[in-house]
Amino acid sequence: MKKKKILIVVMDGLGDRGCKELGGLTPLQATPTPNFDWFTKNGIAGTCDTVAPGVRPGSDTSHLSILGYDPLKVYTGRGPFEAAGIGLVGKPGDVAFRCNFSTCDSNLVITDRRAGRIDKPDTANLVESLKGMTIDGVDVLVKEGTEHRAALILSGNGLDPRVTDVDAHEEGPIHTSIGKVPEAEFTAKVLNKFVRESYERLKDHPVNKKRVAEGRPPANILVPRGAGDFPHISRFPELHGMSAACVAGVGMIKGICGVCGLDVVDLPAECTGGAGSDFVLKAEAALDALKSYDFVLMNCKAPDVAGHDRDPRLKCKVIERLDKMAGRLREDFPEDLVIVFTADHSTPCSLGDHSGDPVPITIYTPGNVMDDADTFSESGCAHGRIGRIRGHEIVPICLDLADRAEKFGA
Amino acid sequence: MKKKKILIVVMDGLGDRGCKELGGLTPLQATPTPNFDWFTKNGIAGTCDTVAPGVRPGSDTSHLSILGYDPLKVYTGRGPFEAAGIGLVGKPGDVAFRCNFSTCDSNLVITDRRAGRIDKPDTANLVESLKGMTIDGVDVLVKEGTEHRAALILSGNGLDPRVTDVDAHEEGPIHTSIGKVPEAEFTAKVLNKFVRESYERLKDHPVNKKRVAEGRPPANILVPRGAGDFPHISRFPELHGMSAACVAGVGMIKGICGVCGLDVVDLPAECTGGAGSDFVLKAEAALDALKSYDFVLMNCKAPDVAGHDRDPRLKCKVIERLDKMAGRLREDFPEDLVIVFTADHSTPCSLGDHSGDPVPITIYTPGNVMDDADTFSESGCAHGRIGRIRGHEIVPICLDLADRAEKFGA
Repeated sequence: MKKKKILIVVMDGLGDRGCKELGGLTPLQATPTPNFDWFTKNGIAGTCDTVAPGVRPGSDTSHLSILGYDPLKVYTGRGPFEAAGIGLVGKPGDVAFRCNFSTCDSNLVITDRRAGRIDKPDTANLVESLKGMTIDGVDVLVKEGTEHRAALILSGNGLDPRVTDVDAHEEGPIHTSIGKVPEAEFTAKVLNKFVRESYERLKDHPVNKKRVAEGRPPANILVPRGAGDFPHISRFPELHGMSAACVAGVGMIKGICGVCGLDVVDLPAECTGGAGSDFVLKAEAALDALKSYDFVLMNCKAPDVAGHDRDPRLKCKVIERLDKMAGRLREDFPEDLVIVFTADHSTPCSLGDHSGDPVPITIYTPGNVMDDADTFSESGCAHGRIGRIRGHEIVPICLDLADRAEKFGA
Repeated sequence: MKKKKILIVVMDGLGDRGCKELGGLTPLQATPTPNFDWFTKNGIAGTCDTVAPGVRPGSDTSHLSILGYDPLKVYTGRGPFEAAGIGLVGKPGDVAFRCNFSTCDSNLVITDRRAGRIDKPDTANLVESLKGMTIDGVDVLVKEGTEHRAALILSGNGLDPRVTDVDAHEEGPIHTSIGKVPEAEFTAKVLNKFVRESYERLKDHPVNKKRVAEGRPPANILVPRGAGDFPHISRFPELHGMSAACVAGVGMIKGICGVCGLDVVDLPAECTGGAGSDFVLKAEAALDALKSYDFVLMNCKAPDVAGHDRDPRLKCKVIERLDKMAGRLREDFPEDLVIVFTADHSTPCSLGDHSGDPVPITIYTPGNVMDDADTFSESGCAHGRIGRIRGHEIVPICLDLADRAEKFGA
């Protein structure tokens, strides 16, 4: 039997609750989705708690689950995953931080936590001056993120992520990082030296001189928070004997996939990760990736954006366009593909944030069992034979349907 | 409240996927099953992952689950379960092997791994000459299986199953078994001595002299592989305070039930375990066994055979006959019985092997809740209130419905 390939389409924050504006329906219930419904009618359906019932997942923890990992074991904090999201993937044992470019006075008292929301190319130029830094034998790596954000990795022996934040999370004096356990005192010492050194290297940087001359706050210090070490994660391709790639516009999703060993596919500029992203182009990129990879995870961020904006009508429009994306996949559906449509979590418009409501899931491959679910929605999928599963069960179920699972016993 | 009895009917490999030959339906979906449907309509229904979602179970690991055990803990390899299947049940600590009767030259170089597919009564006669063997204080037990196969048990102190195979899995010199850990070196030494001794005892055996005279390869050596120790399994009857028996035609199933402490009921010759087995007779044997036992596990192998043969129409015919078996049980249904109809795994005709697709399950006892499922199939059972459960949950659910469960708390 030829082994099939696997495509998991994660529609970020797709699940919702009843919306007053939609007569009590969810955006998925209120929007005609002929293509999702076709997959549901011809495939199997159910509902999924990506982490566990009632748990409100982040996009990071839920994607780890969807990739088959237990986030309670491998999720070590935002630092390493955000660093990976902007392309800084460390080794197990390295300690990563999220940082802000901030503005401080000569006593290191912060006067603007976001340095006037400085952005590229200024941040990229400033980062250049921080390169090649080694403190007490520890290598220091910095990379700029979006706006005032950056990531920091400390790489060396004897590091420990159990240190307090330098970021005071408000204007005022920075905090001195302290080891929460004796083993982390060295890391705190290195971190404090790094912060001071960042000030020394940035304070008279030409970018900042120019900003001051223009009346803008200089980005003269880097302030770290959210320490976490890079987890010892078994790499997805080796774990399952499949080449694997990720098709996503959002940094954090790319970071998570990168940490798990997936290749990150370059996307056309039209795939922005925002509400206006071109999903059909993204679907084509996924179909293209499936020519060279056995497994592809595709993320569409837009429904989450509409949920955070508390805009049910925008979410309906996004869903209409997502259904066209599903139509594009249906049009060129490879005979040897197992496809999954699901979400990483719900982002109810009434809440404006992630919730723990389970998400709909539909799995289709030619020759599967047809169950009695025929509508892709929070309620419609509940008629299907998948029942209520957990996020980490998706990959094993797909491996079985793709005829890639090992037999256990005789 | 009088305690009820329990009958679990395991229809081996019953679950399937959509079959082209059946217009995309599964054999269960395509075949009228009025009796199964009656039990489903009047009972409760659901779907079951015998081991876990996406896991492709063997019949051994899945039956352990259905009997309430965790196969990840108690499944110690094929050796002990195959030995038990042909009637050699060892004690915890004994090490069991699968063996081939093979043909070798005087340098113990294998020239035919299956000794011309020798069979009984030759193998039974050869085994006679291996009786009463003790090596370095270890008792040796051998029993013939089907064709060239046999089982070997080493019984004594200081044994350890972590030894490499003597079987090279191809023609050529046999391997010398090696302990993978120091604790297993003694076992490897005993095993190597046994193999040499088997050659000494078999090479001039009258059966082999006759075979050579007839131009057939002699079975002059026994070559072991697949070491495993008999697991420390809590015996089912003591665990649940129920007398328990197994009604099955297939050796491996009888072996598993034997290891778990179930009595094995003798069956009429018409119950072959093959596709043509007489299920009504088997049902009568189960009803009969229920007169003297509290718990009976009944296995019907036929649907698995049809699945392995990739023959959906044969599977439909088998299902039609299985439904008559269900009708026989319905006809004489004991008022005090909890009955379960399910499968140990799916064997999709399109795959010709076991898959991890969940299997349908229906449980009926007079006076249970009636749910909304009314059709016994992969999709129909998904409407029921059992939801999606694991194999090891079946026995606890039955114990409760049989009013045999202990209260937890006050």
